[in-house]
Amino acid sequence: MIGTQGAAQPADLTDVRTTNLAVVLRYVRTHAPCSRADIAASTGLNKATVSSLVADLLDRRLLRDTGLTENRIGRPAAMLVLETRPYAAVGLEVGADHLAAVALDLAGERLLSWRRAYPGLGAGAGRAEAAVAALAGRVVTKLTAQGRRILGLTVAVPGPVTTAGGVRFAPHLGWSDLDLLPALTKALHRPDYPVAVDNDANLAALAEHRHGPHAGSPDLVTLIGGVDIGAGIIADGRLVRGGQGFAGRIGHLQLDPGGPLCRCGRRGCLEAYAGLPALVRAALPDTDADGPVSDFAPELERIAALARSGDEAAGTALTEAGSRLGQAVSVLADVLDPRVVVLGGAFATLSDWLLPAVEAEVKARAVAPGEAGHVAVSTLEPGSAATGGAALALDRLEAGHLPVPA
Amino acid sequence: MIGTQGAAQPADLTDVRTTNLAVVLRYVRTHAPCSRADIAASTGLNKATVSSLVADLLDRRLLRDTGLTENRIGRPAAMLVLETRPYAAVGLEVGADHLAAVALDLAGERLLSWRRAYPGLGAGAGRAEAAVAALAGRVVTKLTAQGRRILGLTVAVPGPVTTAGGVRFAPHLGWSDLDLLPALTKALHRPDYPVAVDNDANLAALAEHRHGPHAGSPDLVTLIGGVDIGAGIIADGRLVRGGQGFAGRIGHLQLDPGGPLCRCGRRGCLEAYAGLPALVRAALPDTDADGPVSDFAPELERIAALARSGDEAAGTALTEAGSRLGQAVSVLADVLDPRVVVLGGAFATLSDWLLPAVEAEVKARAVAPGEAGHVAVSTLEPGSAATGGAALALDRLEAGHLPVPA
Repeated sequence: MIGTQGAAQPADLTDVRTTNLAVVLRYVRTHAPCSRADIAASTGLNKATVSSLVADLLDRRLLRDTGLTENRIGRPAAMLVLETRPYAAVGLEVGADHLAAVALDLAGERLLSWRRAYPGLGAGAGRAEAAVAALAGRVVTKLTAQGRRILGLTVAVPGPVTTAGGVRFAPHLGWSDLDLLPALTKALHRPDYPVAVDNDANLAALAEHRHGPHAGSPDLVTLIGGVDIGAGIIADGRLVRGGQGFAGRIGHLQLDPGGPLCRCGRRGCLEAYAGLPALVRAALPDTDADGPVSDFAPELERIAALARSGDEAAGTALTEAGSRLGQAVSVLADVLDPRVVVLGGAFATLSDWLLPAVEAEVKARAVAPGEAGHVAVSTLEPGSAATGGAALALDRLEAGHLPVPA
Repeated sequence: MIGTQGAAQPADLTDVRTTNLAVVLRYVRTHAPCSRADIAASTGLNKATVSSLVADLLDRRLLRDTGLTENRIGRPAAMLVLETRPYAAVGLEVGADHLAAVALDLAGERLLSWRRAYPGLGAGAGRAEAAVAALAGRVVTKLTAQGRRILGLTVAVPGPVTTAGGVRFAPHLGWSDLDLLPALTKALHRPDYPVAVDNDANLAALAEHRHGPHAGSPDLVTLIGGVDIGAGIIADGRLVRGGQGFAGRIGHLQLDPGGPLCRCGRRGCLEAYAGLPALVRAALPDTDADGPVSDFAPELERIAALARSGDEAAGTALTEAGSRLGQAVSVLADVLDPRVVVLGGAFATLSDWLLPAVEAEVKARAVAPGEAGHVAVSTLEPGSAATGGAALALDRLEAGHLPVPA
């Protein structure tokens, strides 16, 4: 059974070689250390072709020959691994209350992971651009000082993004039609590596698909908790973006027409139950007196501490939010049938209390026994969207966009 | 911006030629009549390559040289079209109350379109297999008597299908774990063309994507009304099946926890508002007295006739069902952001009365103005799933699975 395809593109010999370089690179990532003979045996490419492809990848400093031989019968074989020193992939993440940066080497190991508070709605759009560009610049400077070449840099934002890298709107940041990509490219002095802006839930899904405990699962959804709630959808190994780039914007999914009023004017939206402001109101009823919250990190810690100490209001609030989250997971299951839904962002921080309620609700709502998908908690937090931004450059590499030899 | 990819496959020279044969075939389908020079100019392939590819496709009787020359400046050019005579692609559709068969030529023209009543739940699984096999046999006999070669045959069923072509369950047919594909293959005497079984909403989506008024739209969802309600999802030009093949099974999407009781035991499911039994109960309140309905075609006609004559009960029932359908379309829009949602099956039959309510609800629920996706009515009914079954064979062809020359 096949699916319908996007318009096929004409192919030539260069495409064949590019495809095969990417196949070898990917094989080494998932099977290192391995020999040329292993690659030939597993991919079906002949040994001479594999030798030529490996030579090319060694030349580009993407692979490294360890010189070690495996203890095996027959001729000793040189073992190949990914070369982790010369390159770095960078991701940044703009949250309602923080900025984060992550850099990965070719093997997906974190080279750095920074996080700083950021006044979100308090910062104007101009200050936001400047703050993102400054952080990006510092990360790039640090990595290049280590002798690394940047493979790519992607900024994750909590809102839909145009193909030109503009942020259409990010209400929790007070942004609308912000041309972040051109500003960033300019601030980085028109760099020779690709720079991109993308939606945070989408990038978190790419990160889970590449580096999470369910990596490689072809049908995976991330559900990211924050001031906003977003889903990132991987279907059959590919990110689902939708016609306008709005796929997964499920914060205003209506769970109950008779539910509480949402700031969008309707009733019973997912955000009105499980968004951070709703959670804080329910679990910390005294907080509103201090005025609107803009940095939720201290509140999240307080909620977790209260729940841990057995506070009833906090426990009830988390159970109620978890049940509603489970209801949303069931909607995603009905529409998409993912193998796993991964809870990220604030949902990961509070997962000890949310997950049991989520799982109970999902199980109760499954149409037939055994049909309920698996719900898991992200192990890539904090910074899963930033990690996804970095992963995007590694995905590009394995799709055949290789750096030219220095 | 790229998406993450499924595991890349090694490529060789045969793949390049296959890819390019498919590119040419697809170009001619969408641009015929066209010359070799047109193909070269549009695809970027060089003229000698195009000539060789076209010769191959002429040899396989997939293209035809019309001998006509276009009225243009310069050398006259032979014009190519798809050869529509030698081949046929076949699709069958098993509904709760009917069987349908459609055959298409390479250009997507209908060669035949048959429909017959079928007692659905009344027929045992054994009789169902026999009825499907007999209809398939008659279609194949008719087409081969016309000198056509069968490219493929696919049966659409209203339920999830295993990769082995078994029907896991189709409650409205009383089927569970029915090995339809092996039975069908045997009844067709192990044919030399591919035979498949697939989900009806998925196949309807393939049909819309290939032959409907929104053909080629990369993000498209079909919403098929019947005893059951199913969605078929095309995202970025590819069918979304989900981890277990359950994607789009949205009949039990809960629209209102305080809604009417559904046969699944929960409240407020989409089917409890807009499934055929619910529609018949609301629009024809006298019908239940005659016992459970198994063939809904006469009831659908009665509802349409009443609505046309201004009957208030029928009008109210259709408006209410349309609003709930609009609510479901909004859920699909939140999760998937399709460019268009196409109403098919019974929803197409009743679209004159359903569509205004659907559109009003979708518009009212859009988070921001201009974000509401477009809702359309299928022009491929009756038999859009059968058309999709036939389209599957044409998709295979354009993915490079070409018949060998006779």
